[in-house]
Amino acid sequence: MNPMANHRPSSMSVLTALSDALGEAVLCEPQQTEPFRRDYWVRSEIDEWRGSPLPNPMAVVTPTTTQQVASVVQICQEFGTPVITRGAGSGVVGGVLAQEDGIVLSTHKLITPSSIDKKNLLATFGAGTNGLEAEELVQDHGLTIGHWPQSIGVSSVGGWVATRASGQFSTAYGNIEDILYSLVAVLPDGSIYRSRETPRAAAGPDLRQLFLGSEGTLGVITEVTFSLRTQAPDQAKQAFHFDRFDDGLEAIRRIMAARWLPPVVRLYDPRESRRNFAESVPKGRSVLIFLHEGPPGSAQLESAAIATTCANLGGVLTESTAVEHWFEHRNTVPTWTELFEQGLLVDTIEVATKWSNLSGLYRGVVEAVSAIPSVISMTAHSSHAYRSGANLYFTAVAAPPEGADYTEIYDQIWDAAMTAADSLGAGLAHHHGIGRVRRTWLNSELGESGSQLLSAIKAALDPKGLFNPGVLMEPTQL
Amino acid sequence: MNPMANHRPSSMSVLTALSDALGEAVLCEPQQTEPFRRDYWVRSEIDEWRGSPLPNPMAVVTPTTTQQVASVVQICQEFGTPVITRGAGSGVVGGVLAQEDGIVLSTHKLITPSSIDKKNLLATFGAGTNGLEAEELVQDHGLTIGHWPQSIGVSSVGGWVATRASGQFSTAYGNIEDILYSLVAVLPDGSIYRSRETPRAAAGPDLRQLFLGSEGTLGVITEVTFSLRTQAPDQAKQAFHFDRFDDGLEAIRRIMAARWLPPVVRLYDPRESRRNFAESVPKGRSVLIFLHEGPPGSAQLESAAIATTCANLGGVLTESTAVEHWFEHRNTVPTWTELFEQGLLVDTIEVATKWSNLSGLYRGVVEAVSAIPSVISMTAHSSHAYRSGANLYFTAVAAPPEGADYTEIYDQIWDAAMTAADSLGAGLAHHHGIGRVRRTWLNSELGESGSQLLSAIKAALDPKGLFNPGVLMEPTQL
Repeated sequence: MNPMANHRPSSMSVLTALSDALGEAVLCEPQQTEPFRRDYWVRSEIDEWRGSPLPNPMAVVTPTTTQQVASVVQICQEFGTPVITRGAGSGVVGGVLAQEDGIVLSTHKLITPSSIDKKNLLATFGAGTNGLEAEELVQDHGLTIGHWPQSIGVSSVGGWVATRASGQFSTAYGNIEDILYSLVAVLPDGSIYRSRETPRAAAGPDLRQLFLGSEGTLGVITEVTFSLRTQAPDQAKQAFHFDRFDDGLEAIRRIMAARWLPPVVRLYDPRESRRNFAESVPKGRSVLIFLHEGPPGSAQLESAAIATTCANLGGVLTESTAVEHWFEHRNTVPTWTELFEQGLLVDTIEVATKWSNLSGLYRGVVEAVSAIPSVISMTAHSSHAYRSGANLYFTAVAAPPEGADYTEIYDQIWDAAMTAADSLGAGLAHHHGIGRVRRTWLNSELGESGSQLLSAIKAALDPKGLFNPGVLMEPTQL
Repeated sequence: MNPMANHRPSSMSVLTALSDALGEAVLCEPQQTEPFRRDYWVRSEIDEWRGSPLPNPMAVVTPTTTQQVASVVQICQEFGTPVITRGAGSGVVGGVLAQEDGIVLSTHKLITPSSIDKKNLLATFGAGTNGLEAEELVQDHGLTIGHWPQSIGVSSVGGWVATRASGQFSTAYGNIEDILYSLVAVLPDGSIYRSRETPRAAAGPDLRQLFLGSEGTLGVITEVTFSLRTQAPDQAKQAFHFDRFDDGLEAIRRIMAARWLPPVVRLYDPRESRRNFAESVPKGRSVLIFLHEGPPGSAQLESAAIATTCANLGGVLTESTAVEHWFEHRNTVPTWTELFEQGLLVDTIEVATKWSNLSGLYRGVVEAVSAIPSVISMTAHSSHAYRSGANLYFTAVAAPPEGADYTEIYDQIWDAAMTAADSLGAGLAHHHGIGRVRRTWLNSELGESGSQLLSAIKAALDPKGLFNPGVLMEPTQL
């Protein structure tokens, strides 16, 4: 097999150099590279579904060690070849999209080291390790990473860090930035950055934070160490339904203010409640579910106090099957293309804001997106709570008319949601990241000065703009 | 009054420009500028005490608004004048030291805005606001910032952020990076960065983290917003004493592993226990004190469980006066010069590491520093616990012989402590920061690649190196 087949002469030299360095780990045949061209972004799936093929990369490289990643990056730097890093491809904002003059660096073979340190409650994994496998590995030792994104079975631990992910247990256990202990990353110049393994340091800016959420633009994360928890001996589940979505928000606000910390706190608006809990909850109600966990006695203490808070706001205790139902289905990931075939276009949009803005944000975004002619449903739940506010996770469903341009409707939905959220002062990206779908909104999120700051850092670390161009920042911002 | 008196012609133009812009807020008389020349670094106090006067700045400017800070920075940028930002001056690592060709930008008049938002549990303060005044203000509303550094009465809220500070309640409430909600900072180019007010965002790297711990080298923090807590309705205090310091460490490790979170967890080695708790604890024992706080019922639940853990390791419950004693004296800040007069040289050095390294770190640093001839005591306590480890806070006391060079002995102590901690794989700076005293060790802390990364960011944001030169990084690193 000649890895250089099907390629323009101009790309020959970088492929030769990569093959010399990595041998079989350089994949060039289109049938090999095709699965690595994109992530789970709806817009990419629309393109593919309607027959606009996505670009194939020059090659997919599959390094197995940090040192190999450094070699790949050095070679790409030398030849000016863009490097699109891809984890497990479960991202939903277009953070991975191949380009013909670039390579895709897939982390899926970066699965060593893998070690668990019970005394220090730490676990180290190669960045490509599957999230669920990592969690199951630590669970065998009575421990937990405590990070449960819906995509846990189809995402990688490095991807969690690169996208600044949140898990379903975040209200108590924090988001990935609160769970990450240390990391190893290859910088655009090919050098290897390894953060010190210390529980905490006041030693200048926290440099790990440059890579948390960098989405492949500032470094290739090759190894992560998480700070673990022991599995909770105590657990309780309960759910309530409220007359109004706002009553549920107020219940969560009071619970956070009272310093309770249930790992799972999820409030569904009436339409989502109906969609998910029709068997146990009357129509028109908003369902709020809780998982309580902690050391002995704590879950009972917390669940009793929270039950009182909910009752004070008119919350009605539901059958426990409501919570069980959620637990059983919480890692189901939908397939967009199946929905296209049914004539439906669906996407999710998450934002966050302060308590005082939440109700207005909910109404404002629902109204703005619902005004788009083909949109048949715009609903939301809140799934990550903080002392100062919470997120809202919207699901838009459109039924485009025969022959309609799905991409155009898709863009309209995002534009309406982002414009409404921005005008209401909300944060524009809670945990899916920026990718390509939000990049024109990054200026609003960071402010003019923040955008310039980020661009200055990007220019300093990656002056040629080779790391994941077009993601996070507009290519022109460089 | 002519603010230009006593100054070389070369500095005339920048002072004229500053005075034109800020008028009376530009102080140039030596008796005006003298109090702003330094922070609370022992080495600066030694210099002053033995009659080696510290350099006076060209001027001290005392802006009252972010916009004024931006004007000052723009002028200094234009004239190539170094800007040394000073909060309340309670830093102990030499982060503030005036230079004759630079100005000191004092934040002490940056005391607006000051607002409390009870619904969203947020409080916004001008960076120069005194820490205790800020805490008392929110306490009037039944809330707390939850950040209690020993220096709370003599530090500023902006200084907390700029130095990446820790408070005594950090084990439950986190360090300042966990409490900070948003900030405003003036960048070296004079632009104003204002982070978005959202509870959480996956929108690229967290840019606030560039300023947390930047110690005046990357921006001037002018305004901070903290995420508050309600005051805990439930509180309990208890203390135990153990046969060995290591037993106390093991108790804390088990408590953290069991997922309890007392705000205050402080373990003193036998000498410090004797120094602080002689009335209530027998000689040779290690005292471990706890403050438990939380919603109703939680403090009792936690204190009972922790009492069992301590008893299992041979911990003996002490009289409650031990904890009360600590509470009464916890914000006493020593005066170095008084100690010099008594023939004593004292400093504190804090580091952190994983549980498996802690005992060795304690022994290694005590041994290394005790080997210095004039050192008469090297002791430690642990005051900030994490799931994966804890800090150690050492206090070195030397009795230099008649005529000895205090600075030389001071440097020996730091060198011995840092060398030992580094060789034992510990993090070299838990919460006092880097300043000047640790800057030669920053390479070890961050690694070669981390240092280069930080230098690249510094060069990108402050290409002339005007913001607090010589702090954090060696001046030559630019």
